[in-house]
Amino acid sequence: MKELGHGANVNHMASIYNKKPEDIIDFSSNINPKVIKNLDKYILEGLKECRSYPDINYTNLRNNISRYIDIDSKFIIPGNGATEIIYLLMKSINKRLAILNPTFSEYGRSAKLNNLEVVNLELNKEDNFSLDLETVKENIDTFDSLFICNPNNPNGKVQDLTDLLDLIIKNNKLLIVDETFMEFVENEEDYSLIKYVEKHENIFILKAVTKFFGMPGLRLGYGVTSNKEIISKIYEYKEPWTINSFADNLSKYIFEDKEYIYESKEYYIKERAYMVNALESIDNLTVYETDTNFILLKLHNKSAHVLKDELLKYGNILIRDASNFIGLDESFIRVAIKSHEDNKVLIDEMRKILGK
Amino acid sequence: MKELGHGANVNHMASIYNKKPEDIIDFSSNINPKVIKNLDKYILEGLKECRSYPDINYTNLRNNISRYIDIDSKFIIPGNGATEIIYLLMKSINKRLAILNPTFSEYGRSAKLNNLEVVNLELNKEDNFSLDLETVKENIDTFDSLFICNPNNPNGKVQDLTDLLDLIIKNNKLLIVDETFMEFVENEEDYSLIKYVEKHENIFILKAVTKFFGMPGLRLGYGVTSNKEIISKIYEYKEPWTINSFADNLSKYIFEDKEYIYESKEYYIKERAYMVNALESIDNLTVYETDTNFILLKLHNKSAHVLKDELLKYGNILIRDASNFIGLDESFIRVAIKSHEDNKVLIDEMRKILGK
Repeated sequence: MKELGHGANVNHMASIYNKKPEDIIDFSSNINPKVIKNLDKYILEGLKECRSYPDINYTNLRNNISRYIDIDSKFIIPGNGATEIIYLLMKSINKRLAILNPTFSEYGRSAKLNNLEVVNLELNKEDNFSLDLETVKENIDTFDSLFICNPNNPNGKVQDLTDLLDLIIKNNKLLIVDETFMEFVENEEDYSLIKYVEKHENIFILKAVTKFFGMPGLRLGYGVTSNKEIISKIYEYKEPWTINSFADNLSKYIFEDKEYIYESKEYYIKERAYMVNALESIDNLTVYETDTNFILLKLHNKSAHVLKDELLKYGNILIRDASNFIGLDESFIRVAIKSHEDNKVLIDEMRKILGK
Repeated sequence: MKELGHGANVNHMASIYNKKPEDIIDFSSNINPKVIKNLDKYILEGLKECRSYPDINYTNLRNNISRYIDIDSKFIIPGNGATEIIYLLMKSINKRLAILNPTFSEYGRSAKLNNLEVVNLELNKEDNFSLDLETVKENIDTFDSLFICNPNNPNGKVQDLTDLLDLIIKNNKLLIVDETFMEFVENEEDYSLIKYVEKHENIFILKAVTKFFGMPGLRLGYGVTSNKEIISKIYEYKEPWTINSFADNLSKYIFEDKEYIYESKEYYIKERAYMVNALESIDNLTVYETDTNFILLKLHNKSAHVLKDELLKYGNILIRDASNFIGLDESFIRVAIKSHEDNKVLIDEMRKILGK
C-alpha cells in the first residue's frame, strides 16, 4: 500500500509507538472540536435518505450552500470534500498553474497528475508568509491560473487579496483561492473573495465544509465560480453521486446553525490569543501569526521529526512535521488549536522538552 | 446544470407531474429493500469516527472486505462507490477497451473521458443477452481489456465466464467484470470470478457494496485484482479520503451479517419467481430471464417513454426507460424487484395499462 503524502496518521503512528490510537491527542489535523447540536438526530434522518441514491444534481445541497454564502446556486459545485473539486478543477483549467508556497501539497499533486505545468512561487517567509505582489507581477506571463490558500495552510495568516484580484482581472488570468479556513477568521467578510464571484469570471473559490463544522469524515466541500467554461468542463468530468446522503442531508442544518458558527468564531479568537501567547513564552521557538485554527512554529535547536517523536513518546501528542512543505525545512512544525484542555497539555509538554 | 445520463430521478420526475417524491414507488433503481439490523447504532458509532479524518490507507475497511470475499487485503482497492473505481481503472489500463453491450453507460462514459478507444461488442439479444465467445475471439486483436457486467445490467442474467477467462488469459488480455449484482444470484459461488483473482493477473473485479446492502447513499464499492501494475497506477491517481467514515465504520458489521445476506438471497429467489411469473401473464410483453433484483421487459405495442409516463401519472410508479442502453430500443424497460407489496402494485398497474 502506497503511503500518500499527508503527514502522519494517528493509527499508523500509534502502532509504531505501541500506543492506542484513542489515547493520542491529535494536533496534526485542523478540525474544530465543537459538535453541532442535534447531530445524532440529523444523522439518523440522513440514514433514511441513504436508502436511495442521492439526487444526482444535488439541488437541495446547492441551494443550502447558496443561502449560506449568498451566491446563486448555479455557481456552486458540490464535492466529496474539497479534494474532489481540486482534482476536477485541474482537469478544467489552462495548462500553466502557479502555486504560492508553502501550501497544501494536494494542489501540486493534482496539477501534476493532470499534466499541468506547475510554476512554484513563494510567499515571503520573512514577513509572515505574506504575498509579494511584485513577485506575481514579474511572473504574470508564466501562468494562466494562480493558486493561493487564504488563510494559508500551514501558517494560518489571512491576507487581503483585493490588489491581487485586480492584477489577475487586468491580465485576464484565473485566481483560485482555497478559503477552507476562512470561517475561523475574525473579520471573515473583509477577506473572503466570494462576494466578487458573481461579477468576475476570473475567480474560483474552493471550500472544505467539514473542518470548520468538525466532521472531516463526512466528506463535503464545494467550488464557487461564475466561469461558465470551467463549470461546464467540471461537469463533463464529474463522476455521479460522489457526495453521500449524510452530507447531503446535513447541509439543511449546519449552515443555518448561527449559534455554532458564532460560538466557534468566538472560541477561536480567544483560544488563539491564549495559545500564541503561551507558545511565545517557550524557549527556542518562533511562533507565526495566525488567524485560523492552527499555528506554524519554527524550532531553533531541534528538528521537527525529533520533536514529533518526543511528543508522541512522552506526551501521547501527535503534531504535524511541516518540513515537507515546499519552501519550509526541518525546523518547522504545525499544531492545531484544539480544546482548551488539550491545548494546555501540548503547551506543558512542549515547555518540558524545549525549555522554560 | 447538465443532466447526467442516468435515467430518471425521483425528485425530478415528481416535479414534472406535480407529485410528492415520497409518494412515488421507485422501480427505476435496483436497491435491496431489506434493512441491516442495528443500523442506527452502527451509524451513530460512525458519527464518532466522523470527527476525525478516515484512515488514509483504509486498512480496517480493506481487512473487512478481505474476510468477506476471502482475498488478501492488498488486492482490494476501496472506493467512493464502484464509480470511483471505474474511473480510476480507466486511467490505469491500456488504450483499447471492449465493452459488451447493452450495459451500464458509466463504463463507456468513463472510458471516453480518459481517452480510451472503446470497441462496442454486443451480447446476443436473441439468446437472453448471452455472451457469444466467437464474437470475442473474432475481435480479440482489437482490444487490450474486455469489460463485462455479470449478472448484466439491464437484463440481470448471470453467465458462466470461465471459458471467456481462459480465452483472455491465453491471449494475455485483461478481463474486467462488474459483479455488483452477484450477491443476488442463487449459486453465486459458481459464477463469481473472485476466486481466480489471486492466481491470475488478468482479472479485475468491480463491486458496488450498497445496492445489495440497501444503502446507495452510503457510497461504498471496491475493486479486486492481483495485477500489480494496475494497483500501482490506481494508487498513483487515487484521491485521498474518498470514502466517508460511516461507510468505513459500517464495513465492520455488514459483511459479517450472515442473516441479512441469507435472508436477502432467499427473498430474491422467491420474489423473482413470483414476479417473472406474474409479468409473463401480462399481454404484449416479453420478460427476460433474470438472476438478480431487476427485470428487463420488452413492450410489444407501446414505447418505453409512453408506458413510463402512464405508470407515473396513474400509478405513482417510476420505471427505467431502457431505450438509451446501447443495442436496445424504444421497446425496452427495466423494473426493480422491490418489496412484495410494491411489486404487486406494479403488476396491477401494468396489467391495467397493457391488458389482461
